[in-house]
Amino acid sequence: MDIFEKLLKNLGPIGEHAERAHGYFAFPKLDGEIGARMNFRGKEKIIWSLNNYLGLANHAKVREVDASAAKEFGLAAPMGARMMSGNTNYHEQLENELSSFVQKEATILLNYGYQGILSAVDALCSRRDIIVYDAECHACIIDGLRLHPGYRYVFKHNDIGDCEKQLRRATEMLKNVSGGILLITEGVFGMAGDQGKLKEIAALKQKYDFRLLVDDAHGFGTMGKTGAGTGEEQGIQDQIDLYFSTFAKSMASIGAFMSGQKEIVNFLRYNMRSQIFAKSLPLPIVIGNITRLELLRTEPALRERLWENVEKLQHGLSARGFNIGTTNSPVTPIYLQGDIPEATAMCLDLRENYNIFCSIVVYPVIPRGQIIYRLIPTAAHTDEDITLTLEAFSEAKHKLDSLQYNVAEIPLV
Amino acid sequence: MDIFEKLLKNLGPIGEHAERAHGYFAFPKLDGEIGARMNFRGKEKIIWSLNNYLGLANHAKVREVDASAAKEFGLAAPMGARMMSGNTNYHEQLENELSSFVQKEATILLNYGYQGILSAVDALCSRRDIIVYDAECHACIIDGLRLHPGYRYVFKHNDIGDCEKQLRRATEMLKNVSGGILLITEGVFGMAGDQGKLKEIAALKQKYDFRLLVDDAHGFGTMGKTGAGTGEEQGIQDQIDLYFSTFAKSMASIGAFMSGQKEIVNFLRYNMRSQIFAKSLPLPIVIGNITRLELLRTEPALRERLWENVEKLQHGLSARGFNIGTTNSPVTPIYLQGDIPEATAMCLDLRENYNIFCSIVVYPVIPRGQIIYRLIPTAAHTDEDITLTLEAFSEAKHKLDSLQYNVAEIPLV
Repeated sequence: MDIFEKLLKNLGPIGEHAERAHGYFAFPKLDGEIGARMNFRGKEKIIWSLNNYLGLANHAKVREVDASAAKEFGLAAPMGARMMSGNTNYHEQLENELSSFVQKEATILLNYGYQGILSAVDALCSRRDIIVYDAECHACIIDGLRLHPGYRYVFKHNDIGDCEKQLRRATEMLKNVSGGILLITEGVFGMAGDQGKLKEIAALKQKYDFRLLVDDAHGFGTMGKTGAGTGEEQGIQDQIDLYFSTFAKSMASIGAFMSGQKEIVNFLRYNMRSQIFAKSLPLPIVIGNITRLELLRTEPALRERLWENVEKLQHGLSARGFNIGTTNSPVTPIYLQGDIPEATAMCLDLRENYNIFCSIVVYPVIPRGQIIYRLIPTAAHTDEDITLTLEAFSEAKHKLDSLQYNVAEIPLV
Repeated sequence: MDIFEKLLKNLGPIGEHAERAHGYFAFPKLDGEIGARMNFRGKEKIIWSLNNYLGLANHAKVREVDASAAKEFGLAAPMGARMMSGNTNYHEQLENELSSFVQKEATILLNYGYQGILSAVDALCSRRDIIVYDAECHACIIDGLRLHPGYRYVFKHNDIGDCEKQLRRATEMLKNVSGGILLITEGVFGMAGDQGKLKEIAALKQKYDFRLLVDDAHGFGTMGKTGAGTGEEQGIQDQIDLYFSTFAKSMASIGAFMSGQKEIVNFLRYNMRSQIFAKSLPLPIVIGNITRLELLRTEPALRERLWENVEKLQHGLSARGFNIGTTNSPVTPIYLQGDIPEATAMCLDLRENYNIFCSIVVYPVIPRGQIIYRLIPTAAHTDEDITLTLEAFSEAKHKLDSLQYNVAEIPLV
């Protein structure tokens, strides 16, 4: 049969809604400077969908360095993969500064987070090794696992009992085989906002022989006394063997990094396929990231402002009776009951009548009958943004509860 | 056992040379503006290692747009994945212009080539589909295949007989199964420079039911009357169902794209994991690529200059008795006999005494006893660059043949 014909019979879980959702719920265009207020379809909205935690995207110094580095070097440099012809002093400088900040011996820059961590998992584990991982790990980790030819044991999300069970199972399995165990979890889970139980997992090192890789995409820059992440927050940064974060969130950039002991980082440098066979991170992005890291380290006021907003938003929602689950990070989910048509009607109402732009998660990502709004407070939000949002959600929830959003089908957008 | 301990016992095929090679053969730093002459360790070299085919990296208009777009938008925008919050009019404009240039209905931009094509293969093929592919496909395609849970049949590089054999085998296998066939090959193979036999493969569509995906990383911008690639060169662009290229070579940028029929591109838009779960291509890169594409289309003199240099270099090498294999593209390999110590000594000699910087491929990438130099001529090279290089290679080859490079071990760098 024709492979294309087959594809068009099943457009996928999001694709099947494309006709109605495109340009509105999916692939919306936000115009204007990145911030808490942007334009959507020509009208200003309060934006809760951007991982611009510290507001660095439009920090004056960030805008200045982005402009000057692009002017000095252009966006083409360096050409080629890092190993072949794409290495620079700036790449090494950023690596050194990251190592010192996250308190690891060495760091490798990655040209993109997704392919970076995917290839790291691939390079670290061979057929005989076992990967033990949290069930809610991000897609990029899951795709790395899919490249792994050996066993992988999943534990229930943040369930330490189950985690230990899987470690015991893996240890048993490896008794007569020369393989090792890599445990992968996240610092902050991006959907529910709960921290990975890194401290409890690290404590299991007393009983089991494994290495711990933590994806701290949402924790880097937001968590910990100095912003060095969830390992710092939980006081076990030294127990994390490989510390990974993207630059796409609090750093408001692209690319990523992985830090750990020198020899292992060096091993990764010479063995990660997505880095050996793809172009190096552009120089202006690297230079921009050096400045972003400096701001992240030297302007704690940004993180304080972020957390003030987190508290205001999360306390406000809780006080108004919203269920925000178990978040203990800036990521703020709102759990509601309802199906896709109600969810869509409510989201439309919030966006059109209250000018609140936020992301919504429905079936099939979560079970039928549930709706999750996910709000990302940032240092760039104001008290007014938060107040207006709380009021809007209260009114919308009242409409939802009193069945005012019960529509026959998904409204056209 | 400890997974890290195990890694350090086998540093990998390139990693095992790291101690001697780092900073010289691996991870060298090229300073100065991207071009045919750059500094390496403080001394000017003639550079043959950059895929800057058309010389766009430092074209005045490219430098201008890179600077102005970064100034206007910063390098953070847009924040988020394209589907969630990272879509812009510029992304759509570039997609439309690419579609029109490569003569396809629609195009999807990809945030990075490696993860882009990997996820495309993943999204297109399910368990029941069979992938038939050329043995020398690039690592990014191979890693996409590794994610494929169904059968994959490899054919000998550019061997149409074997290709047909694998298609027959796949067709037979699918008789009682509702799967289809995706055939993947390349427009120009980046190591040997030979074009994929796209015309012959396309002709097999008369006999077998399959879709053709072509990775034209080295062909886009260099091949064909208008630079639209190897499909245009061979007169079968309409037979290519999915046309892929990176922006990392003749476009001197990052990111990539895939073009094809509208419905299939739309399917990809809603189903490629590396695009749904990773940040959108930054706006200044997109805007920079719009200008690069315009130059690629409107300044054929750049491509003419490239090809003049290709002819001069390849004819010069052939005239001097060098074996450059079967290249019919700008990629210029030089095949020599020798083992790693000789190869290293010769490369050092070329680099230090003749100021020729080029990449070298040895065992274990190719069999023991072989050396391949790979030269990438660009529009930015001058006649003098070529003449000096030809002379240097002649002298170095004489030394190699007269055993002057027979050293006991790899020299220290």
